[in-house]
Amino acid sequence: MSRAFNFSAGPATLPEAVLRQAQAEMLEWDGAGASIVELSHRGPEFMEVARQAEADLRTLMSIPDDYAVLFLAGGATAQQALLALNFAAPGQTVDYVVTGHWGKTAIKQARPYVNVNIAADGEAGGFRDIPARADWRLSKDAAYVHYTANETIHGVEFRDIPDVDNAPLFADFSSSIASEPLDVSRFGVIYGGAQKNLGPVGVTVVIVRRDLLERAGQPRADIFSYASHAANDSMLNTPPTWNWYLAGLVFKWMLAQGGVEEFARRNARKSKLLYDTIDGSGGFYRNEIAPGVRSRMNVPFFLHDPALDAAFLKDAKAAGLISLKGHRVLGGMRASIYNTMPEEGVQALAAFMRQFQQAHG
Amino acid sequence: MSRAFNFSAGPATLPEAVLRQAQAEMLEWDGAGASIVELSHRGPEFMEVARQAEADLRTLMSIPDDYAVLFLAGGATAQQALLALNFAAPGQTVDYVVTGHWGKTAIKQARPYVNVNIAADGEAGGFRDIPARADWRLSKDAAYVHYTANETIHGVEFRDIPDVDNAPLFADFSSSIASEPLDVSRFGVIYGGAQKNLGPVGVTVVIVRRDLLERAGQPRADIFSYASHAANDSMLNTPPTWNWYLAGLVFKWMLAQGGVEEFARRNARKSKLLYDTIDGSGGFYRNEIAPGVRSRMNVPFFLHDPALDAAFLKDAKAAGLISLKGHRVLGGMRASIYNTMPEEGVQALAAFMRQFQQAHG
Repeated sequence: MSRAFNFSAGPATLPEAVLRQAQAEMLEWDGAGASIVELSHRGPEFMEVARQAEADLRTLMSIPDDYAVLFLAGGATAQQALLALNFAAPGQTVDYVVTGHWGKTAIKQARPYVNVNIAADGEAGGFRDIPARADWRLSKDAAYVHYTANETIHGVEFRDIPDVDNAPLFADFSSSIASEPLDVSRFGVIYGGAQKNLGPVGVTVVIVRRDLLERAGQPRADIFSYASHAANDSMLNTPPTWNWYLAGLVFKWMLAQGGVEEFARRNARKSKLLYDTIDGSGGFYRNEIAPGVRSRMNVPFFLHDPALDAAFLKDAKAAGLISLKGHRVLGGMRASIYNTMPEEGVQALAAFMRQFQQAHG
Repeated sequence: MSRAFNFSAGPATLPEAVLRQAQAEMLEWDGAGASIVELSHRGPEFMEVARQAEADLRTLMSIPDDYAVLFLAGGATAQQALLALNFAAPGQTVDYVVTGHWGKTAIKQARPYVNVNIAADGEAGGFRDIPARADWRLSKDAAYVHYTANETIHGVEFRDIPDVDNAPLFADFSSSIASEPLDVSRFGVIYGGAQKNLGPVGVTVVIVRRDLLERAGQPRADIFSYASHAANDSMLNTPPTWNWYLAGLVFKWMLAQGGVEEFARRNARKSKLLYDTIDGSGGFYRNEIAPGVRSRMNVPFFLHDPALDAAFLKDAKAAGLISLKGHRVLGGMRASIYNTMPEEGVQALAAFMRQFQQAHG
């Protein structure tokens, strides 16, 4: 087939213009005599790629100067362990708000190092809503408060930054980073794997308020220290250079498209179209998330009869719509519609869903 | 310029055939409707890429079935911390043999977790030789013995696997993995960043004897557990898929070229030519490493007059020979001539060195 509309939850679709540039530069980067994937991370070529990527991300997300921006390996899951190691004393209390699968994962990584207080947990309600802020039981002296801005599997998204006055706010933004304007100054740490809204797999962005880097944390290897990574411009060891470069191409593309303000508008239109299609299907399709916290990024949905799932996936693929199978935790379907998914893709999916319903309704 | 001979120590040169295939598949992989960098790591396409890469590496390196092969993020430095966390009890003694910069780094990462016994240390001799095995002071009950098979900066390489009978042997093979036949069964753990002999930056190979995965190690996050990574086929979280894929293309290329036996012959010829050029220069070029342990992979050398360094690098670049500047720790020059450096590249470098000497001798 030719290039399809790819609704994968991550690794996820990339702008064709970015892939074409990476393709053109695969044998040689900018007259350097070698591909960027072959050049030293300490050479002038990659140093400039890295500098430009950071500058562009700072512009894109309006990141204040008192925040460090790190480009690291290991994915968001590794950061979930490192947050505890770097910013909490051994056994210190930390507050976690759990609104889905990834919030639970975050706790699992932190537990060996800290005393986890689950300040709020949506699991009893099947993670279909976010516990009301008034019901959160925050600790008096937590090292930090952690939440998951968007739950990739359950399709639940915070539409506002929660107010917490007791401790710095840490947030996993893996699946919604740079999808709309965000007041970074409200956070202590924002982190996310790049492979959803920011581009390629294999590099993770960590945005950390610099004063937090002075916390002692707990005994750990130097390679696990954010302060060391910050002091070495994320080149404490060999970083994932090509992935960082490709992320930089996506940042440039996003800026050229109009920045996060424009993507906020597109993402609102895309998600509204999909939810309207589901809600307007008379129960043929179903999404059970409370309307106020439905994710703009990941739209899980179920067919009224699971026996139709296989036909739905097969026909969708034939129509050039791929990677719609839901996560194994929930089953059903899921359409991930990050920044990099064009509106035409979502329009094609909505049209296909209506056709499929007509044929099988 | 067009593609040069690139002597970078890592990230390092890749076979042009591999880059051309990655280029051809950048927009769409094998009829999947998307690039491999855009597809889910849990989808059938990438699962097959991953399976094939592991199978090919097992063939290439003759890895026995009782060894697990992991493809991880984080680089070799992260593994140096994880070795201690996974395979030693808190504060247990571990033996380290230090033959250069990277052996020191390995100790730095392990120290927060274990009692490091430096069994041998070549630093007093400027790391120009490897301490004789008879002089090593191994512990009685070490959790493991660690050494660096090839020191990328100092250019010192073990030409034989050391005999240690007290504990499993762990080795950092980052810069010499798969460069010649190796008896894997002599080791407990072999690890290495792929960006030197195995291909692309951003993925690290860890080969571990399966019985060691049963060791309790020390309290740690699940993402830091080799046993969990092994149980999840290196997909505990989203792995660096594109990097893994590119490594797989290099494995296929190496097998097609004749495997490690053929690369052992090429690497012997390449390094001999360079050392002969240096030794035959009457002191114009100089390498001070003991001949029996000179690295076949990284050849550091110095011009008799450092004032000529800038001209050497400038003229080399004009001749299509790049990335020859030595590591900042040592200065001078360094030619890294991994599996992926063709013999023509080393012949061109040797010819250039003779010409430069004639012009400035």
